[in-house]
Amino acid sequence: MLNFAFKNRTEILFGKDQINEIASRVPSEGKVMFLYGGGSIKKNGVYDDVVNALKGVDFVEFSGVEPNPTYETLSKAVELVKEQNVTFILAVGGGSVIDGAKYVAAAANYDGDGWDILVNGAEVKSALPIGAVLTLPATGSESNGNSVVTRKETQQKRAFGTPIVQSQFAVLDPQYTFSLPTRQISNGVVDAFVHVIEQYLTYPVNAPLQDRFAEGILSTLIEQGPKALENPEDYDVRANVMWSATMALNGLIGQGVPQDWSTHMIGHELTALYNLDHAVTLAIVLPPLMFVQQEQKRAKIIQLGERVFGLNMEDKNELIDATIKHTQDFFEQMGIKTKLGDYDLGEEAVEAVGNNLDRNGMTALGEHGDIDVAKAKKILSLAL
Amino acid sequence: MLNFAFKNRTEILFGKDQINEIASRVPSEGKVMFLYGGGSIKKNGVYDDVVNALKGVDFVEFSGVEPNPTYETLSKAVELVKEQNVTFILAVGGGSVIDGAKYVAAAANYDGDGWDILVNGAEVKSALPIGAVLTLPATGSESNGNSVVTRKETQQKRAFGTPIVQSQFAVLDPQYTFSLPTRQISNGVVDAFVHVIEQYLTYPVNAPLQDRFAEGILSTLIEQGPKALENPEDYDVRANVMWSATMALNGLIGQGVPQDWSTHMIGHELTALYNLDHAVTLAIVLPPLMFVQQEQKRAKIIQLGERVFGLNMEDKNELIDATIKHTQDFFEQMGIKTKLGDYDLGEEAVEAVGNNLDRNGMTALGEHGDIDVAKAKKILSLAL
Repeated sequence: MLNFAFKNRTEILFGKDQINEIASRVPSEGKVMFLYGGGSIKKNGVYDDVVNALKGVDFVEFSGVEPNPTYETLSKAVELVKEQNVTFILAVGGGSVIDGAKYVAAAANYDGDGWDILVNGAEVKSALPIGAVLTLPATGSESNGNSVVTRKETQQKRAFGTPIVQSQFAVLDPQYTFSLPTRQISNGVVDAFVHVIEQYLTYPVNAPLQDRFAEGILSTLIEQGPKALENPEDYDVRANVMWSATMALNGLIGQGVPQDWSTHMIGHELTALYNLDHAVTLAIVLPPLMFVQQEQKRAKIIQLGERVFGLNMEDKNELIDATIKHTQDFFEQMGIKTKLGDYDLGEEAVEAVGNNLDRNGMTALGEHGDIDVAKAKKILSLAL
Repeated sequence: MLNFAFKNRTEILFGKDQINEIASRVPSEGKVMFLYGGGSIKKNGVYDDVVNALKGVDFVEFSGVEPNPTYETLSKAVELVKEQNVTFILAVGGGSVIDGAKYVAAAANYDGDGWDILVNGAEVKSALPIGAVLTLPATGSESNGNSVVTRKETQQKRAFGTPIVQSQFAVLDPQYTFSLPTRQISNGVVDAFVHVIEQYLTYPVNAPLQDRFAEGILSTLIEQGPKALENPEDYDVRANVMWSATMALNGLIGQGVPQDWSTHMIGHELTALYNLDHAVTLAIVLPPLMFVQQEQKRAKIIQLGERVFGLNMEDKNELIDATIKHTQDFFEQMGIKTKLGDYDLGEEAVEAVGNNLDRNGMTALGEHGDIDVAKAKKILSLAL
């Protein structure tokens, strides 16, 4: 097992009507920014719940944070924060809104253009405090310090991370997910699944507990994901998906083990170029990446097949093929197509992603740093 | 799944030589109490490491905290804290030392006799901050807010818990466990195993992720525990045991599910009366408790047998018997005898424990509150 330092500073408020707990946690002095995305929270009652919970609190709204939140939109929120002397940000939505809140919280306290934080490694020395009300289980953003922001102008999708921007609390009420469109549940389950894979499917370092936790989340997503599509108002199913998605990326399962993240990095370029849903890009990239990296990942692919998919085959090469097929089939079962052609993309996308990776310095991806641009293009070619 | 609020405030510093990290985390102003148990840390180098790490820090030592730390000893530490104006406690040892530090930290700030906190439910409003260096993986005390203290004078072993007394950081260096006596590793593994059982072996509430995490810890302890006895200096094995013991009782796996803790409550009385090792009492009580409560715990005992012990039987009553047997066999494999007679105790102990439970108001134990004194005595009778 590798050394690690780990602390998770977010208080999880999980369950029915936990929104009522935020009144005692949002500071009563100062000014709160109530940050959200489109209008869905006005239709499903979450908006009203939040306004109720903020009774007596001075707040200003900022709406319109997009899926794959953009620097362009968030910069307007940063301006409003400064103009109104906002002291606390309450992010209400999915990972995009919460990621956006983190950027706003850091950029507001940064002396210069916040984009420096994403491209020039500018240090985040302080940030406004954040709280989160999660409406879409997927990214884990509600209890980690990661944020991904896209700059439309340059078609760049970049990430930064620091515990300084992590939410102080996160309300996870499974009821808030009942009205989600099918596509968002599909995306969320696949996103969480791949988050686990990125921290699990590398090489063994004799860390069996981390392996079993990862396998526990994967098995739960495989078991509960399809049920979440079939019965949108089954509280327990939605609760299990929600808790799995949080545990998938709150830092715990990745402690003391190598990590990969190449599927995400390649996928980010597909989103930046063609605006594909984040989870769609992961579903396209992961199966061929497993195929191409099967020697490096051999022991863990076999373990995944045997323990998570329950496969039992003498010939381990056959087992590896079957495990990749099961992974791809799970994405398709969740309603996500896994080929570039399904999204009307062809050879030109392979070329463009390659160029973008090169431009962004993403030329040594994976747990061994052995996925260069040529290999990334080979992976994408297998998804044509 | 049940509602919950969860945050774990301890920063885990896991791995080789992580003691070096404490220099930046112990406050450089004020006065530190370096609290420890017997002399073992002077023999295995931990004492020197701590003194090195505290270079430049003003500290005072307090040693002699016993296994099952006593009110009598800890009260002397409280006096010293007051006398020397201690502002931070560094607990170096196993669960007993860390539990003791929590009591000292709370009692030092309590206006009155600290024992009130343990028997009269006096509220802990503040406490001195604590840090921990763990030398014995077992209780999880390094990253939870629980503390158990024994009053010798009255043979009472009582618990209190609040996040206010939880360690700010915890150093978990598996190397520090290499020199532990076999008995302490045996105890630690069994203690951690039963911590998981108390949060798992109740009734199903459709919380499959919590179940799988619990099963993951149990499987890891069953797999790594015997290896830890065979190869005391196998770093990875000790690391896996250490991380499992922390995860067993840092609060995570018990969120959103019912809990039991009757094995602990009955066991505590055996320790208070006869000074048996904590883990020994759990190994004595759990198997007959599973037998007596097999109807209430039926679904989860079957799940434990199938998923953790890999049992596969048509007849579920047979499977339950086999699961109890496997549990008991695991304790024996870890070198812990499971019968009262093995410790020269007989009917008189059954009677005395019953009387103590009655006196301490422990008359409705278990996840259903249906373990009264008569049933507790029946359970112990089966361990004769």
